[in-house]
Amino acid sequence: MGKAYIAAASMIPFGKYPDRTASDLGREAIGSLLEETGIETSAIEAVYAGRAFSSHIDGQVAVPGQVALAASGICDVPVFNIDNACAACPSALHLATQAIRAGQYEAVMVIGMDKLYATDRRRSMRALFGAMDVEKMAWMSEALDGDGKAGSIFMEHYYARIAREYLKNTGATERDLARIAVKNRKHASLNAVAQYRKPMTEEEVLASPVVAEPLRTLMCSPLTDGAAAFLVCSENAGKTFGLPLVEVAASVVRSGMPQRGTADPVLARASARAFEEASIGPEDVDLAEVHDASAVAEMIAIEEIGLAPAGEAKRLLRDGDTALGGRIPVNSSGGLLSRGHPGAATGAAQLVELVWQLQERGGDRQVEKARVGLAQSSGGLVADEAAATAITILRR
Amino acid sequence: MGKAYIAAASMIPFGKYPDRTASDLGREAIGSLLEETGIETSAIEAVYAGRAFSSHIDGQVAVPGQVALAASGICDVPVFNIDNACAACPSALHLATQAIRAGQYEAVMVIGMDKLYATDRRRSMRALFGAMDVEKMAWMSEALDGDGKAGSIFMEHYYARIAREYLKNTGATERDLARIAVKNRKHASLNAVAQYRKPMTEEEVLASPVVAEPLRTLMCSPLTDGAAAFLVCSENAGKTFGLPLVEVAASVVRSGMPQRGTADPVLARASARAFEEASIGPEDVDLAEVHDASAVAEMIAIEEIGLAPAGEAKRLLRDGDTALGGRIPVNSSGGLLSRGHPGAATGAAQLVELVWQLQERGGDRQVEKARVGLAQSSGGLVADEAAATAITILRR
Repeated sequence: MGKAYIAAASMIPFGKYPDRTASDLGREAIGSLLEETGIETSAIEAVYAGRAFSSHIDGQVAVPGQVALAASGICDVPVFNIDNACAACPSALHLATQAIRAGQYEAVMVIGMDKLYATDRRRSMRALFGAMDVEKMAWMSEALDGDGKAGSIFMEHYYARIAREYLKNTGATERDLARIAVKNRKHASLNAVAQYRKPMTEEEVLASPVVAEPLRTLMCSPLTDGAAAFLVCSENAGKTFGLPLVEVAASVVRSGMPQRGTADPVLARASARAFEEASIGPEDVDLAEVHDASAVAEMIAIEEIGLAPAGEAKRLLRDGDTALGGRIPVNSSGGLLSRGHPGAATGAAQLVELVWQLQERGGDRQVEKARVGLAQSSGGLVADEAAATAITILRR
Repeated sequence: MGKAYIAAASMIPFGKYPDRTASDLGREAIGSLLEETGIETSAIEAVYAGRAFSSHIDGQVAVPGQVALAASGICDVPVFNIDNACAACPSALHLATQAIRAGQYEAVMVIGMDKLYATDRRRSMRALFGAMDVEKMAWMSEALDGDGKAGSIFMEHYYARIAREYLKNTGATERDLARIAVKNRKHASLNAVAQYRKPMTEEEVLASPVVAEPLRTLMCSPLTDGAAAFLVCSENAGKTFGLPLVEVAASVVRSGMPQRGTADPVLARASARAFEEASIGPEDVDLAEVHDASAVAEMIAIEEIGLAPAGEAKRLLRDGDTALGGRIPVNSSGGLLSRGHPGAATGAAQLVELVWQLQERGGDRQVEKARVGLAQSSGGLVADEAAATAITILRR
């Protein structure tokens, strides 16, 4: 098998775009990528577009990738629209990587685009709800149809519960959750494409409204729209582009094991497999982007991935190890909490951050001597396990 | 590159399932496939699930494949949800085939599942509408929001127009369109899993209500729910299964060229590429399943694919060449017109029919000496060209 590389990455500023479709946002990211790389559109042999929720917001169902590409000059190629909830984009990258490694293509494009913001919040909640088993959760569907508060099933039911369990089991505190939010906001303040950039204090986070104990609003990711695009290629093609190449050292996608309980978390299994594929260990990772849909998720993720010993995420956090300038910066982009969380485009933004850091384009938030970056996305829930989990390891 | 094979195919009877989700239908097809093949679930290394429209009907958005698999015993593998409108399932098969050919996996599953029937017809129309560029077609969106008739943009605007052009250019008649519908209904009458099986006459078709001149109701595909599943494998794995293998001789997915006009139809280009990949010509095809979303589409498709000379589909039709027992039976399953049209599951049903025929499991509609079958799906519309077109050639 050959190797696959990311030659360039581009994303639009994340935020609320109530008047634009996801495909329109994708179009902008594609345009930026083509302009930045100067690549001929005829060199793009296939396109893999990750998208999950936006059809419930903008109505574009079946061919969002083709609509995004319609004016680009890229045509007459295979276009695949890939869903996997928030793991859709690394899933698309996985398929692109496999095709490049197999020698099927020399250069392809990966797109991530999605919308979770809607002026009617109920639409966002209904879209998110669709990432669970809608039959088994019919009671929630009925709640969404009613006139009550349009709450997030992920925050109020899933993350709040695991946050309570996690704090109880590890001795981490609500203030640690606030520390995560403050750290990631500080990172976002250095990132021009992040949604929320105004620094905040732990007191501000702890004073924000309770979503469900112990989670507060500022410990939960916002509803965001966004898009990103990547040029993925073989080493040979990469040389002709003259662009700084970042190797896709590992790309693992795994589903959960709903019928076997949660004794063996899918994230730990996927991570172990990714380290094996990259022939490295957790100690070799220089920076990580993890799926901090809520603050507690970052703490759990870095432990299950193996970046912190079990129960010790609080120690890394308090010591500043996971902040910029620390031993292993986590979510240097600002994370879902501050960079924003546009569903399928979230996994794309994580990869953009890693590519930029490994290309030494991190600007004020550049991680020194960054050689290896890891991204983790989890998408959907089936019987309390992530329906799709993706680990991507990039190396310069 | 190695070769890829389909070892088994299974589908549920197509029809209206107003109380079931697409994932639930998929679950039944997966169960049938596992039962029929007796394969251990642990032998399945990855799953590619094609799905397009059902999220607008049943609310299941992001992870339909994982929900369908939840009780199957298949877990802890990569699961990819693939969209491409009506070409979603052959797109999923394409990705599966490439992975098997590259030696990445020995055995994977491909699923196709979708719903287009809704008790509120407006929901079906809105879902279908989403397969076009929703921004450029905003006027149609407004029409769907109004109180008027919930018409199909595909039938009333797209297919009716090209039918008028086709009849004018080729001398084919409205009666030829009726002949297509009658032929395919006769085929469906021999197919236990087809949605509509009662034979009909040309007079009945010509007396059915006008949708938009020259198309009448019985010349248009119905709104259908359905699901199918496939076991795709390498030659080595296939031998251990002891199942009759059907080779995926060609699997081509192509997008349209919206910015270049329609001088060079995407279907003709994709077909030429597929014949090259399979190292055969149109004359070697023993039977074909084509995307007869409307009767005229079958006539245009067999000409663009090269199964009939340009403008001559009417001659093959009138001579009985494309009927069962003829030189090249087309839509022996009953086609979209009578087997039914459940969006992404349609392409799956075409492949099921080819597999069954090539495995000599065609029963009363078995095509004699069937060695090579071709399936064509087209999905979505961007600027009047199919957003995704798939050609699959299977060979025993």
